[in-house]
Amino acid sequence: MTPEEFRAAAHELVDWIADYRASVSDRPVRSEVAPGWVRDQLAGPPPESPVSLDTLMGDLSSVVVPGVTQTQSPGYYAWFPSNAALESVLGDIAASGLGALGITWQSAPALTEVEEVVTDWLRELCGLSDDWHGAIHDTASTACLVAMLVARERATGLSEDRGGLQAEASPLVVYASTQAHSSVPKAVLLAGYGRDNLRLVPVDPVTLAMDPEALRRLMAEDVAAGRRPAAVVASLGTTGTTAFDPVTEIASIAAQHGAWVHVDAAMAGAAMMLPECRPLFAGVEGADSFGWNPHKWMGTILDCSLLYVRDVQLLVRVLSTNPSYLRAATDGEVTQFKDWGIPLGRRFRSLKLWFHLRLAGAESIRARLRRDRANAQWLAGQVAGEPDWEVCAPVLLQTVCVRHVPPDMDSQALEKHQQEWAERVNATGRAFVTPALVEGRWVVRLSIGAEPTERADVAALWDLCRDAAQGVAPLG
Amino acid sequence: MTPEEFRAAAHELVDWIADYRASVSDRPVRSEVAPGWVRDQLAGPPPESPVSLDTLMGDLSSVVVPGVTQTQSPGYYAWFPSNAALESVLGDIAASGLGALGITWQSAPALTEVEEVVTDWLRELCGLSDDWHGAIHDTASTACLVAMLVARERATGLSEDRGGLQAEASPLVVYASTQAHSSVPKAVLLAGYGRDNLRLVPVDPVTLAMDPEALRRLMAEDVAAGRRPAAVVASLGTTGTTAFDPVTEIASIAAQHGAWVHVDAAMAGAAMMLPECRPLFAGVEGADSFGWNPHKWMGTILDCSLLYVRDVQLLVRVLSTNPSYLRAATDGEVTQFKDWGIPLGRRFRSLKLWFHLRLAGAESIRARLRRDRANAQWLAGQVAGEPDWEVCAPVLLQTVCVRHVPPDMDSQALEKHQQEWAERVNATGRAFVTPALVEGRWVVRLSIGAEPTERADVAALWDLCRDAAQGVAPLG
Repeated sequence: MTPEEFRAAAHELVDWIADYRASVSDRPVRSEVAPGWVRDQLAGPPPESPVSLDTLMGDLSSVVVPGVTQTQSPGYYAWFPSNAALESVLGDIAASGLGALGITWQSAPALTEVEEVVTDWLRELCGLSDDWHGAIHDTASTACLVAMLVARERATGLSEDRGGLQAEASPLVVYASTQAHSSVPKAVLLAGYGRDNLRLVPVDPVTLAMDPEALRRLMAEDVAAGRRPAAVVASLGTTGTTAFDPVTEIASIAAQHGAWVHVDAAMAGAAMMLPECRPLFAGVEGADSFGWNPHKWMGTILDCSLLYVRDVQLLVRVLSTNPSYLRAATDGEVTQFKDWGIPLGRRFRSLKLWFHLRLAGAESIRARLRRDRANAQWLAGQVAGEPDWEVCAPVLLQTVCVRHVPPDMDSQALEKHQQEWAERVNATGRAFVTPALVEGRWVVRLSIGAEPTERADVAALWDLCRDAAQGVAPLG
Repeated sequence: MTPEEFRAAAHELVDWIADYRASVSDRPVRSEVAPGWVRDQLAGPPPESPVSLDTLMGDLSSVVVPGVTQTQSPGYYAWFPSNAALESVLGDIAASGLGALGITWQSAPALTEVEEVVTDWLRELCGLSDDWHGAIHDTASTACLVAMLVARERATGLSEDRGGLQAEASPLVVYASTQAHSSVPKAVLLAGYGRDNLRLVPVDPVTLAMDPEALRRLMAEDVAAGRRPAAVVASLGTTGTTAFDPVTEIASIAAQHGAWVHVDAAMAGAAMMLPECRPLFAGVEGADSFGWNPHKWMGTILDCSLLYVRDVQLLVRVLSTNPSYLRAATDGEVTQFKDWGIPLGRRFRSLKLWFHLRLAGAESIRARLRRDRANAQWLAGQVAGEPDWEVCAPVLLQTVCVRHVPPDMDSQALEKHQQEWAERVNATGRAFVTPALVEGRWVVRLSIGAEPTERADVAALWDLCRDAAQGVAPLG
């Protein structure tokens, strides 16, 4: 395809995108396609000859769009916000257009240095000290794995350079709360520690935050049994209820055993841009690594996850590669992000942050985060004031966890009821919410924070929830 | 930003991209900016208020573009091709515009099922049997790490579910040739095996392919010493010289010890689309995992790396997560790609393959690959016919490794000379080549395969190399 053919096609495509984004609220929020439907529409022998752009965009409209959940809809309250602010979409398009190759600094100096600039901007916007050095990863899962690998190597004095983890005499142990995201156990298992050496620390029954005394006790028991505490993952803004583990105390306990502290603030990190939320993050300066995702609430399009560390030398020591074909005269003077993570090749991901921050400005992003917090507080107030409804966890950010508890239901029926009324909400297509099992009870998470969601949308959600919980037939 | 503001901005941006791609050959191929220059231009306090699109695009043109190596230029012969075919750029733009969230099947059924369709198309186009099941990863580094993790878990009967690798009594060993990509040792170290348990198997001095007898001997020695062969990485198309390890023999030797065979064909996999190249890949059906990168020679924009495995059940067993908030009624009926790799969240990467294959058609991609192979053969013939020049390795695909060997130079001077004349080529800005140390000798890799590179460009490169090697002043 020539640049001129591309020009014509791309103009058509961006019109299609603008139309799509303008009409997103007309679509059912949750994709309602059946398993296999999309595949059945599109499968067939591999294409030998070109099809027209019109054919392709027809399939995009009629098959792909109904096949995605509308995360950019004002009715999206599922999981966590997954905003794709259009400023950041422009940056992503610029990255695609440039087609740069991020392997070494030399392959694209700007790809490296814009990343240094934007990770530094976000560090400052979050009020983190300049002891921290950041890089962009795809997701918090990967960032957590990197942290668990570096923790493993610090605890073993770089066993990777000798006989590996298998040569270690006494077991290394990792700690995280029962409310930690599923990516934390996954990272611990992939890093080789083993499930037997993962301690899920109990949480406070009200705040659902890690109980530091339980952590202290578990660590002492492990040490007494000849095991070595290697790392603790503190979750700030858990997936279930956005609970905040007490990092100050965790870091102090971890320090007694030389254990690495990784802070997973995947969703909540954006709130650090708000000075009034900073107290929730007290103690992060005492951690060893800190990760959060601009691709969630802040709204820079996925995938854009930040991992900050303090000891870059150790990070690079664990993750570096330096074969001859990647060497250059500038080595030593420049940052080589290939040595800060798992992949060698990198997209120009920093452009989407650079576009987003510069075209929107930090002040407008903070205003939107504040709007969502106020909406969550308003909704929590409504729920708390309504008979037979409960707010199940502190509302610190933008997620409101609720239960509808009619007095005539037994406890088993109540658990089923939460899932059923959530499904009735979702079946309307007007909103999409996700239930979650939190410490043995089903709650319905109302995760506010899609970019177009205003107070009126949240009020409509609350009406919908009440109707659904009363078994009123969905209006579709 | 509203959809209408986006529309206006995106039209400007795609014009900019078309202009950029049309003029790419006017720019120096290698970025010539000094370390820190880009950062110095763009650093400053975080942006509080919006800047205009014009300001941003001005910086894009004047700072970012000179700050990237022009991988889309006909003069790009460095590392490996990193094509960003404009058909695939359109698919990448569509993915950005949709802003879909790939966490579970439910979050975006089409994101999952289009990926099933395109990985299946490429399997067929490569002549692989339907025993293989593919998914898209960011890079071959990550795919190799996944393979090393699954190999570790197979060898230990799922030690991740017990005491982890640290509880294993006898060491696990991994084998790869001395010519394997740097991501292979990195994956082995990150997976916890340890450097002491990585065997770099010698290669044939002429073909630079793994010596299977050496592999057999090393495995026997390890077994005799109480160690367990866990995995072999066979490289098809090595980074240095595109050598092909003998997979049939490797798989047969590995099978005697139950070792996992991972085939790393990151660059060369595209050649499997050419029936005439299939003999180079003989034996891959006997491997356990097979990875290659459409984002290299085939030209689907980075990041787009495929990993095929035969035992999906085991893969998922090692990598799965299933917390309550990710459960849905359709579980069990659908593919959950979150359990096929490291990250939970995924971009809609399959769209760039879907657009590329459908808008270009496989036939035109094969024609381009054949053009590049013919150009490499032509260049190899020129080099071989010229006094004082050597072709240093078999030219099986599109990379020609050369040395200029004037008779009056001693061996030390010769090594320096190769790096010097390559630097003289690069300093002209008309071409960019990368030297590499291959089995103790510096060679200059002329890696043909940028999408716009035609025979005339290769002829000009050859003239430039001869001038540079003679010390003729570069023309700039």
